[in-house]
Amino acid sequence: MNEDSITSKAREIIDKRIPFHKIEDYFNVDSNEATLIRIRALELMRGKELNSLRRFNIDMNYANNRNIENPVGTIELPIGYAGDILVNNESYSVFLATTEGRLTAGVSRGIKAINASGGVRAAIVDDGMTRDILIEFDSVLDSLKARELLERDNVKSKLIDAFNSTTSHGGLIDIHGFLIARQMHLRFKAFTGAAMGMNMVTIGAKEAAERFIEILQSNGIEARILSESGNMDTDKKPAAIDYILGRGVSVIAESLVSYEALRDILKVSEPKNIEKLNIAKNYLGSAYAGSHGFNAHVANILAAMFIAHGQDAAQIVEGSQAFTYIENIDDKNLLYISVTINSLEVGTIGGGTGLPKQKELLSYNNLYGIEDKEGVTRKRFAMLVAAVALAGELNLLAIQEELKLSHSHKTIKRDVK
Amino acid sequence: MNEDSITSKAREIIDKRIPFHKIEDYFNVDSNEATLIRIRALELMRGKELNSLRRFNIDMNYANNRNIENPVGTIELPIGYAGDILVNNESYSVFLATTEGRLTAGVSRGIKAINASGGVRAAIVDDGMTRDILIEFDSVLDSLKARELLERDNVKSKLIDAFNSTTSHGGLIDIHGFLIARQMHLRFKAFTGAAMGMNMVTIGAKEAAERFIEILQSNGIEARILSESGNMDTDKKPAAIDYILGRGVSVIAESLVSYEALRDILKVSEPKNIEKLNIAKNYLGSAYAGSHGFNAHVANILAAMFIAHGQDAAQIVEGSQAFTYIENIDDKNLLYISVTINSLEVGTIGGGTGLPKQKELLSYNNLYGIEDKEGVTRKRFAMLVAAVALAGELNLLAIQEELKLSHSHKTIKRDVK
Amino acid sequence: MNEDSITSKAREIIDKRIPFHKIEDYFNVDSNEATLIRIRALELMRGKELNSLRRFNIDMNYANNRNIENPVGTIELPIGYAGDILVNNESYSVFLATTEGRLTAGVSRGIKAINASGGVRAAIVDDGMTRDILIEFDSVLDSLKARELLERDNVKSKLIDAFNSTTSHGGLIDIHGFLIARQMHLRFKAFTGAAMGMNMVTIGAKEAAERFIEILQSNGIEARILSESGNMDTDKKPAAIDYILGRGVSVIAESLVSYEALRDILKVSEPKNIEKLNIAKNYLGSAYAGSHGFNAHVANILAAMFIAHGQDAAQIVEGSQAFTYIENIDDKNLLYISVTINSLEVGTIGGGTGLPKQKELLSYNNLYGIEDKEGVTRKRFAMLVAAVALAGELNLLAIQEELKLSHSHKTIKRDVK
Amino acid sequence: MNEDSITSKAREIIDKRIPFHKIEDYFNVDSNEATLIRIRALELMRGKELNSLRRFNIDMNYANNRNIENPVGTIELPIGYAGDILVNNESYSVFLATTEGRLTAGVSRGIKAINASGGVRAAIVDDGMTRDILIEFDSVLDSLKARELLERDNVKSKLIDAFNSTTSHGGLIDIHGFLIARQMHLRFKAFTGAAMGMNMVTIGAKEAAERFIEILQSNGIEARILSESGNMDTDKKPAAIDYILGRGVSVIAESLVSYEALRDILKVSEPKNIEKLNIAKNYLGSAYAGSHGFNAHVANILAAMFIAHGQDAAQIVEGSQAFTYIENIDDKNLLYISVTINSLEVGTIGGGTGLPKQKELLSYNNLYGIEDKEGVTRKRFAMLVAAVALAGELNLLAIQEELKLSHSHKTIKRDVK
Repeated sequence: MNEDSITSKAREIIDKRIPFHKIEDYFNVDSNEATLIRIRALELMRGKELNSLRRFNIDMNYANNRNIENPVGTIELPIGYAGDILVNNESYSVFLATTEGRLTAGVSRGIKAINASGGVRAAIVDDGMTRDILIEFDSVLDSLKARELLERDNVKSKLIDAFNSTTSHGGLIDIHGFLIARQMHLRFKAFTGAAMGMNMVTIGAKEAAERFIEILQSNGIEARILSESGNMDTDKKPAAIDYILGRGVSVIAESLVSYEALRDILKVSEPKNIEKLNIAKNYLGSAYAGSHGFNAHVANILAAMFIAHGQDAAQIVEGSQAFTYIENIDDKNLLYISVTINSLEVGTIGGGTGLPKQKELLSYNNLYGIEDKEGVTRKRFAMLVAAVALAGELNLLAIQEELKLSHSHKTIKRDVK
Repeated sequence: MNEDSITSKAREIIDKRIPFHKIEDYFNVDSNEATLIRIRALELMRGKELNSLRRFNIDMNYANNRNIENPVGTIELPIGYAGDILVNNESYSVFLATTEGRLTAGVSRGIKAINASGGVRAAIVDDGMTRDILIEFDSVLDSLKARELLERDNVKSKLIDAFNSTTSHGGLIDIHGFLIARQMHLRFKAFTGAAMGMNMVTIGAKEAAERFIEILQSNGIEARILSESGNMDTDKKPAAIDYILGRGVSVIAESLVSYEALRDILKVSEPKNIEKLNIAKNYLGSAYAGSHGFNAHVANILAAMFIAHGQDAAQIVEGSQAFTYIENIDDKNLLYISVTINSLEVGTIGGGTGLPKQKELLSYNNLYGIEDKEGVTRKRFAMLVAAVALAGELNLLAIQEELKLSHSHKTIKRDVK
Repeated sequence: MNEDSITSKAREIIDKRIPFHKIEDYFNVDSNEATLIRIRALELMRGKELNSLRRFNIDMNYANNRNIENPVGTIELPIGYAGDILVNNESYSVFLATTEGRLTAGVSRGIKAINASGGVRAAIVDDGMTRDILIEFDSVLDSLKARELLERDNVKSKLIDAFNSTTSHGGLIDIHGFLIARQMHLRFKAFTGAAMGMNMVTIGAKEAAERFIEILQSNGIEARILSESGNMDTDKKPAAIDYILGRGVSVIAESLVSYEALRDILKVSEPKNIEKLNIAKNYLGSAYAGSHGFNAHVANILAAMFIAHGQDAAQIVEGSQAFTYIENIDDKNLLYISVTINSLEVGTIGGGTGLPKQKELLSYNNLYGIEDKEGVTRKRFAMLVAAVALAGELNLLAIQEELKLSHSHKTIKRDVK
Repeated sequence: MNEDSITSKAREIIDKRIPFHKIEDYFNVDSNEATLIRIRALELMRGKELNSLRRFNIDMNYANNRNIENPVGTIELPIGYAGDILVNNESYSVFLATTEGRLTAGVSRGIKAINASGGVRAAIVDDGMTRDILIEFDSVLDSLKARELLERDNVKSKLIDAFNSTTSHGGLIDIHGFLIARQMHLRFKAFTGAAMGMNMVTIGAKEAAERFIEILQSNGIEARILSESGNMDTDKKPAAIDYILGRGVSVIAESLVSYEALRDILKVSEPKNIEKLNIAKNYLGSAYAGSHGFNAHVANILAAMFIAHGQDAAQIVEGSQAFTYIENIDDKNLLYISVTINSLEVGTIGGGTGLPKQKELLSYNNLYGIEDKEGVTRKRFAMLVAAVALAGELNLLAIQEELKLSHSHKTIKRDVK
């Protein structure tokens, strides 16, 4: 399809007010061609150039209706390589997609200090994606009876069956009924294989909830589903329930950093100050601010890792609720540092992981989840993310200990001409 | 530079253990060439292909050391066009960068209903980027004396001068000293022109804080800067202070949606149910979950808009703390809906906005902030983001009102084979 | 013991610097006499009168070392009678100990409207007092192993045995191990009979935790108890975990208030406005304030009921995290109102319940818990408290609907002369 | 009035269904007599004894309609004397009204250690009682215009005049308009002399808000008062806004405790462990629990001090949001400890302070606020409360450091027979 053909098709779309998502069918073109027509139409509509949008490296026949609708090209963010990090004695290459100068360099510096100290130990302490279905009753007595039913083994097993009938990749772990007013929040928690699993759990929970409504009705209890997502999941909002009860992967990464590495690599003159800084900034400061994030900038690392590896970027919200802990161990010349993230929702299959570059980066570290029924790659990826977050925390606290934060920003060639 | 040359250079890098960030200097190549060498070296290091990384459309000579270090290509996310939205009677085209299927289609549906009802009214209710410098004193009496000094006009004006001496693009609005234990959190709030301004404020605050320390010392008060970022900003962590006192832009978008649009476009049979759903899910559900996000999925829209337009993706955390309000106005056949986001940190210059595609998308809506001293484009962009978030909220609540959420997910061709 | 004898003893205490808590032994007097000596000594020490303190109606031989040390009399607060309230079709008399004018009258008004509408339905939806023991390990791997042990049936049963060996009045319900950094918060939840049970659970949890430490050591895992109260209980601090997972009694009270009662008793002209007020004030207002209390003034009722009935007044903190829900049911001329309190820590035996007036008030409603192994009186008292809180919410919202709040305050004869 | 007369009157009340609050008028008796009649009536109504209620030492002619309605006697709690504490080099006697065994003894122990180390330094860092009036507009544009008006000097001064016209004991400090949806929360902050001032501010704010509505209307802006208490005060609910922006008195107490006192009085073997315990329990533990209380048991001391001194017990909720900070200063053999309470709502006049015992206890420390226009006694009382809270924190952390918490509970003669 040449430029002229694209332009004439674009004009036709505009003139005949054809909806953009019907371009494929209307002209019998594939989604890559339709994308070019859409871009041209946009250019004509406002008399503006969208030249760079034309250069995209995603097959829109794959992405359209899977990851996107009405595709008009791709956005590109630079990827930085922050070195290899040792996690549980295995080496992973760290790729960050970001536009924030110094982030990659800083993480890289943290990684060096961590590696020099033997790397990161990480552990998965909980696992399960959640969905909350909100049910309304006529009275609290009914909701209480409903919960008593829910806790019966024969009822629970029926709901598990209903849930599991919808997927061959995961399985329901547990259901909990939270009562408020005359409503019940039915919080499902499920194993989701290698996938992040939000859709999987949404579909399964719906099925199970409908089964539950039937069971209730056969027991003479009237109930109505008010919402298939009642905000006690909690998806894409900061929420205490996520770090108290876990959502997705709950992961803890820790490292014992040597004074030598602190001094030589991170230029920390006084390790005890890092401990104190963590208390004053990440605990007292965050507490005073009414914050759920007791850390320095874990969200930065989550954002850069999520975007590079095809994760759902909106879910950095939950993960940002991380706890950084530092303890100076004077008599051993070591600084203990750990990062706890109890709601890290990641997947190594599905979502954006199938896009070419994202898949390539996951595969590079053997973390693409195809045929990974046990979710091993997903868990490893979660531990990698937490480990890199730990490196990011260590580096930023070290910089601030030396009061170099504003200087590090100053050295950036700034874009504001 | 041909393939062979790249490969041989990559081998040399590996053999001689040349740090990746020195490739440009070592071979006297530009950053685009260095990027290719790095990619090749990575391939050799683990025997894995990174073919698709080679295709990048960012000039790494621009991005390197500005947005990224050690660049190894770009990541690509598809952009969907969700139609044009009316905000304060002007039309903006909506571009979303996401990998979550149905998000663009859903927002598009919400926009249709909004436009059919006259569009969105939006207003900026506060503006100013913040940075918190943490200072320690010998005792609370000293910190109290320091705050009394801080509140004197002649002292405050010196700090303003110190801050403003570091930038020609912004200016300090106010400083507040929060006391805790024997520490003071010095929270700066500044106008930052068209830029998001985090770096600008960091540099200015440092300068002002150092000036403050001098003033304190000349008044006989010992004080030490503990941290240049004491977490009462609060940057990239959810925090009540951000929505109570504002950070970046505080914006409210609202719309009066006609029953006709609800019925015909959003298939809502009973408008009153939307109001009830908002209360049960976004208020009671969020409250029970210990959440700071009293909305359905504002973070989704922030993520997609931020990534498409060169914003700092980690800052969707603060913005996710949004309030969605719905009121059914029975006697006028209207549904009032509004979204309040008090900490929306965006910029139309700096950060990732200068990258080619990001700049193109901003420019397409006349929102690229070059030479915009007043930050008009930044504020307009903030209103656009809030308006699209409103469309996203309306659509999702409408879907849930009809219990179609799991069905809408089911229709996606899933990637999990 | 006459006045002179008291005075001379008091002088001796001061002259010889006898510690006040040794007065009983030193003079071989009982605690009531010792109390009078202490009061006299205090008078002599500062030359101030404490005449009214001498009139106390508690037997200090009972209270000393049980409820108080160094007793110097009693404080008195007036008790108001707010009428009888129907809860689950039983009538309870409502006594409030408060010094806030109009509180009793207001609650009384609310009760009238509730009773006229058939009273309150209330239900216990969860029950169990909690204590968190904080354990430190050498690494996260150890803490993870420890939690795996904890979840084994044979280990859990040993801990249950250890816990239960310390009390004949309660029993451990469950233990959960929350991991953070290299620490584990071991949260115990126990049935406590008629007692509030904080001490009971503290002692049992200590025993079980020490048993757990032994089990860990016999499995080669080093562990140390850092704190016998690690703040994940959470006692006497507002905390999301308390309303998410429950502490003490979780209770929901609800009522369907007739429009007639609203109009005639509460002077509400427009029932729909109560619903709207609840949303604007108790949801949006509280959310914006970063609050955990989505109600109007539940703490007021808790304080007045707790003090009157011998409860631990500091525990109104947790209970203040209540959710008030209002739904206007237009087509039935009813207003649904409910109050959910998930962390209401009350007891009908132990603590201050054995003091004469407190015991009398509990007994008046057949709620004194002597020989109540099942905690029936405790649960009934919890439902009564929630029901009265509901009446308080209804009344205050009704007053505000009519904008009478400041007027109701104005009518008080103010003490500020 | 003899027993027979009381009984016959009580019978008449019951038979003729005379409302209890009309007894005074009906029989032309004073409130003390009416109280006895009410008690007798209650006894007859349920056939239960309320003997001890008859012994009360409050003049009900004073309390009725000021502190209580329908008085039926008083409740009594024992008061313990916890010794004298040095605050800013002045000595205050500490009285606690509590029924929790060991609380007084524990606080006393903490006080000893504090005094031995030179006492407590305390400072008031902010002062002002708040009230939030909630106003609704037709659109966000109107609310924004309204806020622009509010910030004009001539408008603000009119509102200040309106507020101040209602009281001769206080004065408006500031008003802030928080916008959300199309609503404005108008948060007033006022100086209240020696009174806690909630009623004073409620009345003043109402007056000012009505003046504001008039000003708005004369500027063509429609506005309605939705609530005279919009929950952004925030009164009697835990809320971040209270500790971020302050409510009532914001006070910081600190002490440098000598290692000697720690060892000899508090039996602390390793001062560094107290620091660590504070971090693990009061920071990490509280953060993980989603708590607003970064302390051990400040609410305990607030409850005991509030009840003893005539404060509003429900307001311990806000004060429980306190920050305890500990820093071990190795090289000086000192432990720095501080308690920050930003929302301590206390008064030394009004409320329950005029009741005989409460007034006596305040007066004993020269803290009764009669004729104290500057609120000096109120501020001193606030500092005293914070200082005692600090002693309570120190003691509890010291006990836990030695793992004696459950033992200290065990030694109590328990009431649970």
